[in-house]
Amino acid sequence: MADQYAQSGEAVRPSEIPEIPAIPAIPAIRWDEPPEGPVLVLLDQTRLPGEESELVCTDPPALVQAIRTLAVRGAPLLGIAGAYGVALAAARGFDVDEAADALAGARPTAVNLAYGARRAQTAYREALAGGADERRAAGAVLAAARAVHAEDAEASGRMAVHGLALLDELMPGGGHRVLTHCNTGALVSGGEGTAFAVALAAHREGRLRRLWVDETRPLLQGARLTAYEAARNGMPYTLLTDNAAGSLFAAGEVDAVLIGADRIAADGSVANKVGSYPLAVLARYHHVPFIVVAPVTTVDPETPDGAAIEVEQRAGHEVTEVTVPFVPVAGTGAEAGGGIAVAPLGTQAYNPAFDVTPPELVTAIVTEEGAVSPVTAEGLAELCARSRQVTIS
Amino acid sequence: MADQYAQSGEAVRPSEIPEIPAIPAIPAIRWDEPPEGPVLVLLDQTRLPGEESELVCTDPPALVQAIRTLAVRGAPLLGIAGAYGVALAAARGFDVDEAADALAGARPTAVNLAYGARRAQTAYREALAGGADERRAAGAVLAAARAVHAEDAEASGRMAVHGLALLDELMPGGGHRVLTHCNTGALVSGGEGTAFAVALAAHREGRLRRLWVDETRPLLQGARLTAYEAARNGMPYTLLTDNAAGSLFAAGEVDAVLIGADRIAADGSVANKVGSYPLAVLARYHHVPFIVVAPVTTVDPETPDGAAIEVEQRAGHEVTEVTVPFVPVAGTGAEAGGGIAVAPLGTQAYNPAFDVTPPELVTAIVTEEGAVSPVTAEGLAELCARSRQVTIS
Repeated sequence: MADQYAQSGEAVRPSEIPEIPAIPAIPAIRWDEPPEGPVLVLLDQTRLPGEESELVCTDPPALVQAIRTLAVRGAPLLGIAGAYGVALAAARGFDVDEAADALAGARPTAVNLAYGARRAQTAYREALAGGADERRAAGAVLAAARAVHAEDAEASGRMAVHGLALLDELMPGGGHRVLTHCNTGALVSGGEGTAFAVALAAHREGRLRRLWVDETRPLLQGARLTAYEAARNGMPYTLLTDNAAGSLFAAGEVDAVLIGADRIAADGSVANKVGSYPLAVLARYHHVPFIVVAPVTTVDPETPDGAAIEVEQRAGHEVTEVTVPFVPVAGTGAEAGGGIAVAPLGTQAYNPAFDVTPPELVTAIVTEEGAVSPVTAEGLAELCARSRQVTIS
Repeated sequence: MADQYAQSGEAVRPSEIPEIPAIPAIPAIRWDEPPEGPVLVLLDQTRLPGEESELVCTDPPALVQAIRTLAVRGAPLLGIAGAYGVALAAARGFDVDEAADALAGARPTAVNLAYGARRAQTAYREALAGGADERRAAGAVLAAARAVHAEDAEASGRMAVHGLALLDELMPGGGHRVLTHCNTGALVSGGEGTAFAVALAAHREGRLRRLWVDETRPLLQGARLTAYEAARNGMPYTLLTDNAAGSLFAAGEVDAVLIGADRIAADGSVANKVGSYPLAVLARYHHVPFIVVAPVTTVDPETPDGAAIEVEQRAGHEVTEVTVPFVPVAGTGAEAGGGIAVAPLGTQAYNPAFDVTPPELVTAIVTEEGAVSPVTAEGLAELCARSRQVTIS
């Protein structure tokens, strides 16, 4: 039985690592310039793991739609997508300011999205102000987007190094059993991701005993995406319902929690996928380190604290219906969101996309500039200042 | 939007209580005697809320199968089913001891199941020992099963009274906002249930402001069954993913947690649906009462503590696949469990059906004999003794 191993709590059995079909990987995002004009090509994450298909965006509204439906998602990748989206607007002759506004506001919580869009918009304005024509200004925006993309890839590598060093410091023996929530790997990044990149680095060094993967309701990014990335990388992983994490903590099966972030307030409050906060409380209760891994661009000095973070509320049908991409829903059971109802018709749902973990429950925030632990406003401000110096120099 | 209300945190809006189709209710379990011979008729809970259909068991193996597939489920109802199952064996000429063993062991965690089966088996043996022939002994077993059924209905009513009194004592202002997990209503009981019956009593007295319903992965008993019962009873309820409960606690939107139990050890450790323990930790962290409602038959003096409770581990496909009863799964995507894969093929899953909450996290255990608070072995033993006196007298 697939779930027998998980009960035993024994060491890794590499022979049990599941096989996955050898489908060529499609990058999560890429800029392309076919004869018909420039396009932004996305891996449609709503169709994973069953199908790897590309979604081609030829204009900013198509990208806004792809962001809202989560075809492209994850804080760092949203920053990259936002920047490329403005580049697409400039290259295709759309109103650049309008596109930047629409992209920056497509989802409210991840600050990286606005960061990427605004940085690209600034590049455009500065190019025009410097005397460039529209074609050259469009080139400047694309260069800015490519820089956002490359910087994220580099940041990912550095986060993995700092994160693994912290894990090894906290748990000198190795054999780390890490619990993660949502998806924070190559699918959300120009590189190998944030929290997932740390687990992957531990795996490559032979120090990952188990990756516990929360399925992450309602949209199952853990089951669909993190399990997919873990399988691709040959990592020892086990999937669980989000509510089963409690038993793992109680049984002493979790050495550390590693998650990403969608926005970090100036005081160190962390907005991340709904379900992160309960893990932080469980981790505290069980004296397990709770570690947030995110690039410095996720820190928003303009957001003073957790209460100031706007949490996106999503449609209730994500909870009241099950959406199965491969099955047509014509006939009985089909409901408002195009899925199959699993609750009585008319049921209202509370469906926040994120929750907020206060800094006192976060053991450390790991960025490409290093880790802050304990998490304080001063420590975060210092990291951000260091990052700006690097950028300026 | 269905989920707008939940964000506002305002008082109940009765006009928003969802309508449900006026389908005649089918009892969760009933004994019937058609000309073809006695049968046990179950409401097939795997097909709710989309379809109310009956499952007719003509022999003990069919009932064992129905118990394992969760067509019939919930600790008190399993006790009733176990007793009727032995009655069915006796009435149909099956080996009664063999049937009692098979039924008592069909699922390991809920002690009520074994209690019901063994009590019926004892009635049969005693009747035979007293000189009854097999037909009269079968009648004695049926009478015992009917007594289990009737006692559960009565216990349910008394739990509701004691539970509501406790809620009112803990929160004198009324307007209770109660969070519940899994399903504990009429679908699991000869009466109106355990924890759900308390919320329903509060609703009838005009003191329930909101019932927060955890969807309860992996089998969605909250979304499918508790939402169904709440809608039928016109209660103000809101569905949420299990991992969204953390935000509700953090926002101060939960006044109490009310759950049932599958087994309570002598020390007061509570085995209940997986996801209960994280709620207990969240409740403690937020100083919210965590109340367990269960009949005295759920207390097992033979189980000394939480570590001695056997937790049922279920098949991984309940997590790695989505099962949609109304949709045929022929074609792409179908997997081992007959559902549609939502994780990569070969993914292993950790899928415990229950978790165990230690007594120090339980504010009170409410039974038909009254409440124990704080939860101690002595207090529980006293309640059990009182219950036995009532039964004996």
